[in-house]
Amino acid sequence: MSASGSFASDNTAGAHPEVLAAMARVNTGHAPAYGYDEHSERTRLLLRRALGDSAQPFFVFGGTGANVTALDAVLLPQEAVITAATAHIHVDECGAPERHVGCKVLPVETPDGKLTPALVAPHIKGVGFEHHSQPRVISISQSTEYGTVYTPGELEELSDFAHSHRLLLHVDGARLANAAASLDVPIKAITSDAGIDLLSLGATKNGAVGAEAVVFFREEPARRFKYVRKQGMQLPSKMRYVAAQFEALFTDDLWRRNAAHANAMARRLADGVRDVPGITITQRVQANAVFATLPKKWIAPLQEKFFFYVWDEATSEVRWMTSWDTRPEEVDGFVAQVKGDSRPREE
Amino acid sequence: MSASGSFASDNTAGAHPEVLAAMARVNTGHAPAYGYDEHSERTRLLLRRALGDSAQPFFVFGGTGANVTALDAVLLPQEAVITAATAHIHVDECGAPERHVGCKVLPVETPDGKLTPALVAPHIKGVGFEHHSQPRVISISQSTEYGTVYTPGELEELSDFAHSHRLLLHVDGARLANAAASLDVPIKAITSDAGIDLLSLGATKNGAVGAEAVVFFREEPARRFKYVRKQGMQLPSKMRYVAAQFEALFTDDLWRRNAAHANAMARRLADGVRDVPGITITQRVQANAVFATLPKKWIAPLQEKFFFYVWDEATSEVRWMTSWDTRPEEVDGFVAQVKGDSRPREE
Amino acid sequence: MSASGSFASDNTAGAHPEVLAAMARVNTGHAPAYGYDEHSERTRLLLRRALGDSAQPFFVFGGTGANVTALDAVLLPQEAVITAATAHIHVDECGAPERHVGCKVLPVETPDGKLTPALVAPHIKGVGFEHHSQPRVISISQSTEYGTVYTPGELEELSDFAHSHRLLLHVDGARLANAAASLDVPIKAITSDAGIDLLSLGATKNGAVGAEAVVFFREEPARRFKYVRKQGMQLPSKMRYVAAQFEALFTDDLWRRNAAHANAMARRLADGVRDVPGITITQRVQANAVFATLPKKWIAPLQEKFFFYVWDEATSEVRWMTSWDTRPEEVDGFVAQVKGDSRPREE
Amino acid sequence: MSASGSFASDNTAGAHPEVLAAMARVNTGHAPAYGYDEHSERTRLLLRRALGDSAQPFFVFGGTGANVTALDAVLLPQEAVITAATAHIHVDECGAPERHVGCKVLPVETPDGKLTPALVAPHIKGVGFEHHSQPRVISISQSTEYGTVYTPGELEELSDFAHSHRLLLHVDGARLANAAASLDVPIKAITSDAGIDLLSLGATKNGAVGAEAVVFFREEPARRFKYVRKQGMQLPSKMRYVAAQFEALFTDDLWRRNAAHANAMARRLADGVRDVPGITITQRVQANAVFATLPKKWIAPLQEKFFFYVWDEATSEVRWMTSWDTRPEEVDGFVAQVKGDSRPREE
Repeated sequence: MSASGSFASDNTAGAHPEVLAAMARVNTGHAPAYGYDEHSERTRLLLRRALGDSAQPFFVFGGTGANVTALDAVLLPQEAVITAATAHIHVDECGAPERHVGCKVLPVETPDGKLTPALVAPHIKGVGFEHHSQPRVISISQSTEYGTVYTPGELEELSDFAHSHRLLLHVDGARLANAAASLDVPIKAITSDAGIDLLSLGATKNGAVGAEAVVFFREEPARRFKYVRKQGMQLPSKMRYVAAQFEALFTDDLWRRNAAHANAMARRLADGVRDVPGITITQRVQANAVFATLPKKWIAPLQEKFFFYVWDEATSEVRWMTSWDTRPEEVDGFVAQVKGDSRPREE
Repeated sequence: MSASGSFASDNTAGAHPEVLAAMARVNTGHAPAYGYDEHSERTRLLLRRALGDSAQPFFVFGGTGANVTALDAVLLPQEAVITAATAHIHVDECGAPERHVGCKVLPVETPDGKLTPALVAPHIKGVGFEHHSQPRVISISQSTEYGTVYTPGELEELSDFAHSHRLLLHVDGARLANAAASLDVPIKAITSDAGIDLLSLGATKNGAVGAEAVVFFREEPARRFKYVRKQGMQLPSKMRYVAAQFEALFTDDLWRRNAAHANAMARRLADGVRDVPGITITQRVQANAVFATLPKKWIAPLQEKFFFYVWDEATSEVRWMTSWDTRPEEVDGFVAQVKGDSRPREE
Repeated sequence: MSASGSFASDNTAGAHPEVLAAMARVNTGHAPAYGYDEHSERTRLLLRRALGDSAQPFFVFGGTGANVTALDAVLLPQEAVITAATAHIHVDECGAPERHVGCKVLPVETPDGKLTPALVAPHIKGVGFEHHSQPRVISISQSTEYGTVYTPGELEELSDFAHSHRLLLHVDGARLANAAASLDVPIKAITSDAGIDLLSLGATKNGAVGAEAVVFFREEPARRFKYVRKQGMQLPSKMRYVAAQFEALFTDDLWRRNAAHANAMARRLADGVRDVPGITITQRVQANAVFATLPKKWIAPLQEKFFFYVWDEATSEVRWMTSWDTRPEEVDGFVAQVKGDSRPREE
Repeated sequence: MSASGSFASDNTAGAHPEVLAAMARVNTGHAPAYGYDEHSERTRLLLRRALGDSAQPFFVFGGTGANVTALDAVLLPQEAVITAATAHIHVDECGAPERHVGCKVLPVETPDGKLTPALVAPHIKGVGFEHHSQPRVISISQSTEYGTVYTPGELEELSDFAHSHRLLLHVDGARLANAAASLDVPIKAITSDAGIDLLSLGATKNGAVGAEAVVFFREEPARRFKYVRKQGMQLPSKMRYVAAQFEALFTDDLWRRNAAHANAMARRLADGVRDVPGITITQRVQANAVFATLPKKWIAPLQEKFFFYVWDEATSEVRWMTSWDTRPEEVDGFVAQVKGDSRPREE
């Protein structure tokens, strides 16, 4: 990456040293494979304490795998999942849900990456009509791909709405930590207490090497999930090293510290550039992402020094992401650069 | 696991310290995700040196994922893969190839887990007949699930046979290291030089934390594999940590030392129990597994002290696996225990 | 159905007597199964004459099966088909394309059920980016689900656009006959001459008992299609009876007479109600469907005498479909009824 | 086909005139599509009377589609169906069950195409073990692909065995009529009364044009089957014409007369050639198929006059099938030809 800094993604960040240390700590002799070891069991209990008593966590390899196997556990192929048009499961998984589950993914346009009952309602149609994929799951991202966050109240409203239509609420929580940190609430408040039914819980973007979990808050899908996970190619054999990563993050709330830092860096960046003429922040900065439009000609020079993605070529909208290890100096350097770019060059 | 030792599997073993050290070494700042980083590129070159110039390696999460995405890259759903009835892809992947690829898996009975042209030939039928899944791939395990090993000559014979029938030869190399160590040949001799077309290359069972690769020795499937891997839920985001594990194992031939040790421990175990009355070694001990039948009543007491699996309840056949970290004392303790069990108790 | 008449769908219609007669004519003794009989071969030649020399037709059971197997022949599961949000493959096949092909279906909002290059262009994105399903096919319905029709010029523009982006153009021609009749052009003019690559050719809605075909205008997908069709559960064993239905329709242009009649009936209906106060025809009436909004309270009484579907409850938009056997008196009776409903009741 | 006669298959036969007549009878005006018409309802009741009160029949297009959608209604993709190695679902459906359902098909070698509890038992393994596809269905063909027949007692034994292992028993009844006629029992005796759970009920091979049904004898799979059928591309739109075919066959036991005739022709053929030196009948002739080995050099000349398939090139085993319309003279001509071939030519 560029020497000056990277605002490309939270998965270009490294791993928190405590994560690697935890992996080294469990590296002692033989242990049962596939999650039947004591480290995995201990970590599942740790997660249950954070997520609520009904939580049944299963460790998996990756984020796409977490989403797909979670959906596979609750969806028949004749059913559909309703999600935001910006959702990772719709635009960033190369069609893995359709391929593996066989279900339909119904995208809903949103202004800010967030679904509401009003936005979802028109897509619940054709119920009982055999020509239509039957709506079964509402899937939201928390925090969203736009860096926005659902409040506990909004989640409850969505889960009530879902349940009243006999649907389930799935949360893609690749960045759940950022949401909880942003809201300054226990993780339970935006999961079990808010009525969500199943969760993809991310650690990778929060400072892990590579560790995700599928969490069910209902008995039935959990009961058969071991088969779903195995067939879904998401069963790590030396599970203890995946568990250890979660253990590190869920010990002394490291997950929250990492996420809070990333969020703070996004705010620092947004605050720094907000008033620069030519720049418009396009989404509320609630987690670790800043979306902004800026003059097209600024982009290439900026990218020479800082790595980041253009979100929408048409509107010159860019995405700047921060992570657990973003340094304030990087942000300040970036802001200075932006401000420099914004000054008239002909002077 | 039992305090005395485990012969359950090579994936109950821990990770080699050098693997964890390599992961720590790449943990410096940001790096492009998804394999576009310098660590991943460097490691791909390292693998290419070992596997031959035609080798195109792609890192993935797990062994089942490696097999399934490798097959997905070359098989249409109307096609079939012919494999040994004992193959991991047939009995140990919960139907993942059928589910994800949609193809048919045709099992062939073998005496020792090894396919030969003569065994495969009867299954190449219905070619051109639309009612039949069209044979397209022969998949073998090297070393096999029985701990037996294909020689370079046997591999060449199989790849020639495959190609003469317009089939491809896939090698499930979860334990390829053990085979190369057993044969005392370069890894190239049993891959590119032997005419195989695609390979699942394992590191996890050879001392890694969790790292596998799909390797193509032909251009065409490699060209589209990035999509196949992503959709197959096998694209690690922080790829450098997967690459680092391979880098550790392919530096100074650590992979070979690990495998050779595991193999030696299996031979030590087999040699120790071979002459015990009541015990029959049922397969040639060429890699890191020992298969044996023994009196049924010995099994439970032995399992109290050493963990291992019964392979076939009906015949009291057991599997004892060794790994890179099996200690000679463990083996000797186990042998002593077996010998003790074999002495008449009524004395 | 109601004694007064049905405007529900063209598949509530019966079969043209000539279709049943043709089926009876081929009912003589034994014939090779699966399309290897002379009747099937003769009919394939008949279709080729109508569709162009490059046409390679394959008979299948049903319309959904035709669409899904056609797409299956040209799409990898990592690829996407772009289609109108109203397309049958998106809303009326219970997710069959996603389930069977594994591909992604990308819906595009349109005003009239018709795609244009400008509408499609924004959906061709993420090309070469492994996180995105790769666009591969544009699928249009001719005539559309709204009863609108693409001109030969519009088709050429779309096929040029598709090919310039290395995409293929698929036509769902469940009602292709209605389009050709509406345009008063040979069927070739809107298929091979217009550059389309693959076609689902319907007969069922045009007076058959149940008969559809997949037609390729390129060599490659045709070559392997026999396997795709069989695995796709669309290979009729006694094929001659499917072929006979096409033979009846493509003899003396019965297909065109049937379609032209259905179209004329739709125009008669539209013309009859167009000026009734309270009624708005919402789509151009180019084929055999009339879409209209009318006062909500008229609907139930009308449905007591005539069967038809409400298209959109929210806007009181209804769909009236005509078919090859719709009688002018039925239409006139319907128009009279509508006019009666429109008269102030309090008189 | 050859002028002399065809013993290729029962699907090279034509349709019984009464079947075409019934189709013509329902060809009166409009009728609701997709099975919601009175003809379909009436025929479902007719089938229920024959199959038992618990029978819930659903009409579909074809035999492969019937098998695949039946299995799709009861199998999760993590589950397996155990079947004879000769079963249509294993060798004659181009992998459709694996592709569409995602399940595993486990073939069992049998001497006569018939499964028994003893043959199935070894394949019920790995239950509860996540690495194994979980056995869920036993699927048998009645009559079998070898022309053998299960007695009611054998069926009960199998269904008891299945249920005691929490498995379901599926019957591929493409030739169920031949079995019932052979056993001279009501069709109920080998379906609901024998404890089978789901059935693919064939009409095509019994004199229909093209008509099959999926029948459930349990509530649960029936409840969601309408979606499974639609997504499985097996929902005929003009359903009345499919229903009419069943109506013809189930009126005045036409199905039984057709099947009994076919069976009688097979016996006539077998009896005619049984004592010819050089010929060995290899399977019991219980339905409408004769399997025999004969000198290899006889085959080509015979095939010049009569069409039939070689079942096994290696052993010169052939299959001669009869059908509802096989004429005694054809059989006698065939027998004469075989006897002629058997006479020493040099005389």
